[in-house]
Amino acid sequence: MARPKVLIVGAGGIGTINALALDLNGKADTTLVVRSDYELVKEKGYEINTSMYGNFHNWRPKHFVPSIEVAAKEHGPFDFIMVTTKNIPDGPTTCESIVAPAVTPGLTTIILMQNGIDIEIPMKKAFPDNIVLSGVIYIGSSNTNGILKAQGADTIRIGSFDDNPQEFAAMEKFAEIYQIEGKNSVVIDHDCRKARWEKLVYNVSFNPLTAIVNMDVNRCQIHGANDSLIRPAMRELLAIAKSDGHEISESKMDFFIHIGDGFFYCPSMCIDTRKNQFMEIEVILGNPLKVAEKNGVDAPILRTFYNILKLKQMQLKEDKGIIKIDKADYQDNNSDEYPAIFLEKNK
Amino acid sequence: MARPKVLIVGAGGIGTINALALDLNGKADTTLVVRSDYELVKEKGYEINTSMYGNFHNWRPKHFVPSIEVAAKEHGPFDFIMVTTKNIPDGPTTCESIVAPAVTPGLTTIILMQNGIDIEIPMKKAFPDNIVLSGVIYIGSSNTNGILKAQGADTIRIGSFDDNPQEFAAMEKFAEIYQIEGKNSVVIDHDCRKARWEKLVYNVSFNPLTAIVNMDVNRCQIHGANDSLIRPAMRELLAIAKSDGHEISESKMDFFIHIGDGFFYCPSMCIDTRKNQFMEIEVILGNPLKVAEKNGVDAPILRTFYNILKLKQMQLKEDKGIIKIDKADYQDNNSDEYPAIFLEKNK
Repeated sequence: MARPKVLIVGAGGIGTINALALDLNGKADTTLVVRSDYELVKEKGYEINTSMYGNFHNWRPKHFVPSIEVAAKEHGPFDFIMVTTKNIPDGPTTCESIVAPAVTPGLTTIILMQNGIDIEIPMKKAFPDNIVLSGVIYIGSSNTNGILKAQGADTIRIGSFDDNPQEFAAMEKFAEIYQIEGKNSVVIDHDCRKARWEKLVYNVSFNPLTAIVNMDVNRCQIHGANDSLIRPAMRELLAIAKSDGHEISESKMDFFIHIGDGFFYCPSMCIDTRKNQFMEIEVILGNPLKVAEKNGVDAPILRTFYNILKLKQMQLKEDKGIIKIDKADYQDNNSDEYPAIFLEKNK
Repeated sequence: MARPKVLIVGAGGIGTINALALDLNGKADTTLVVRSDYELVKEKGYEINTSMYGNFHNWRPKHFVPSIEVAAKEHGPFDFIMVTTKNIPDGPTTCESIVAPAVTPGLTTIILMQNGIDIEIPMKKAFPDNIVLSGVIYIGSSNTNGILKAQGADTIRIGSFDDNPQEFAAMEKFAEIYQIEGKNSVVIDHDCRKARWEKLVYNVSFNPLTAIVNMDVNRCQIHGANDSLIRPAMRELLAIAKSDGHEISESKMDFFIHIGDGFFYCPSMCIDTRKNQFMEIEVILGNPLKVAEKNGVDAPILRTFYNILKLKQMQLKEDKGIIKIDKADYQDNNSDEYPAIFLEKNK
C-alpha cells in the first residue's frame, strides 16, 4: 500500500514541527505549504532546535510548495490535511477557502490543529463529504525567519468533534503515521470539546488582555492583573464551559497563571497586535460568547475584551486597505447609529 | 478695595480662556502659571480664536509666570486659585502638592475646574482652613503650542461640594469678577455633584474606550461601539449615580452619543495615550467605582476599562522611568502573585 499523503497548511512553529515529525517517521508522504519563507527554505532550509526531535541544520521537508494550488497539482490527492494556520473567519480569507483547492471529497481527512471552540462548523459545512477532526497541541514552538524552536512534549490530542465512531479509523491511521516511540505521542481524545474548553482558560484571558494593553504576561501580573482581570475572566470561561456540559477544575486557572513564571513573554494575540496581524478573536472569544448567550451565562469581562478587540480588528482592516471609511459619508450624520455602509473588499 | 488676586494653575485650553475672560473683565488681578510654553508666551504671546471673546493676536495675560513658586512670591497672596490642570492622583504629582506653595490658609478659595467625582476629598484634607469649590465647564477648547481655540458658550457652573451656605459669598465674589454680560456666565450650582455625574456619562465611556483602542469616537461608532460598549458603559454609570442619589435622564446618553456627529475627533484620554501622557483614570473611573462598590452596584464594563487603563498607566510609568521592573527579581518566582516590590520614585 502506498504511504498516505499528508498536506500541512501553515508553516509556522506548529506546522513545521508536524512536517519534521512526519518526515522523521517516514510513514507518510508529506507536503508543507510554505508561503512567506519559500525562497528562504529553498535556498538554505530551516535551522531547527527542538527538545524532542533534536537539532537539524539546513533541514528541508521532503516536499515544500509555495501554494495550496501547487500542492494539489503536484502532490495530491491528499489523505490528510493538517490545518495549522491562524483561524480568522472575520479576516480576508477563511480556512475553508484556504484549503479548498486541496480537498478531495470523500477522501481527504481534515485535521484542525487550531485553538477555539466550534471551529469545525464552517469546515464541515464547506466539506460535507469529508471527515473533519480536532487536533489539540500543547507544544511551545516558534518559527522566526526559518529558525525553528520547540520545547516540551509533542503530544497531539486527536478527536472526533461529535464522537462519531466512523471517524476512529482515520484517527488511528493518523496516529500510526505520526507517532514515534519515545519522541512524541498521539492520544485519541473521546472528549475533544473538553480539551478545547480547557485550552481556552488561557486563551480567553491572557491572549486578549496582553493584546489590548500591549504588555507581556509577567508585567500584567506584576501590576495585579491576576486578581483584577485574569482570574475573573477565567471564571467566566469556566461558567460558560459548565453550561456546555464541561466541568473544568479551578486548578487549571492556577496552572495557566503560572505557566510562564519568570519568563517575560507575550502570547500569540499580543504578538499579532505588535506585528499588525489579524487576531483569532472569533474562535477564541466570539464562539464561546455565542455559547454563553445561548445558555444565559453572564460574561461581561470576556464580552468587553471581545468588543474592544473587534474594534481593533476593524482598525487593522482599515489600515490594510480592506475596508475604507470615507469621512464625507458621515459629515452630516445625526442618526442614532452610524450606518455600516463601508466598502469591504475581499469578503 | 483692591481687586481680588486670582491664580490660574494649568495653561491648557481651559486655563488660558479663564485668564482671558478675567483680564477682559478687568475686575481681578490675574496670574497664569505657564510651564511648558513660558518662553513662547513671553516671546510672542498667544494666538487666540474664540466664538465668545473674539480673536486676539500676540495676546499675553497681565501676569504669567513659569512656576507656582514664582507666582506666590511675586503676585500673591491669592484670593482664588483656579485649578485647571489634569487631576492624576496616581501620577508623580498630586494637585494638592502642585498648588500648595500658593495657598494661603484662611484666605485662598480653591476652585477645582476638573472632571470626575470626589476630587475635593484630598484637596479639603490638605487645606482644611480653605474653601474648596466645584467648577464645571462645558467649553470646547484647545491650546496647541500657543494657538488657542474655543467654541461654544463659556458657562462655569460653580458650586459648594457639600452645599455649605458659608461658601456662597466666595461663589458670588467669583461670579462678579468672571462674568461678562453677553459673553459668558457663571451659574451658582446647588447640586454640583449631579453636574459631575452627568459629565461622567461621557467621560467614563468615550474617554476610556477611545484611549484603549486608540481610535476616534466616530470610527468606534461606525463599527458598532454605541451598542456594544458605549451605551452599556453609560448605563452602568447611570446606575452608580442613582445609587448615590442622582437620577440622570437616559436622554443624556443620546446627547453625548451625538455630541460629535460628523467630526472625527478624539477625547482627551485618547490624546493622552497618543502623547504618552498620564490619564485621569482615578477621578474618572476609580472614584465612581468606589461609589459602586460601597453601594453594591455592578459595573463590570467600567471596571474592566479601569483595570485595563491601570495596566497601561503602569507601563507608562515604567516607560517614563518612574517605576523600574528588574526581571531578575522575578526569575524564579512561582508564588501565587508576583510581589509588587518595584521601585517607585516620586511617590
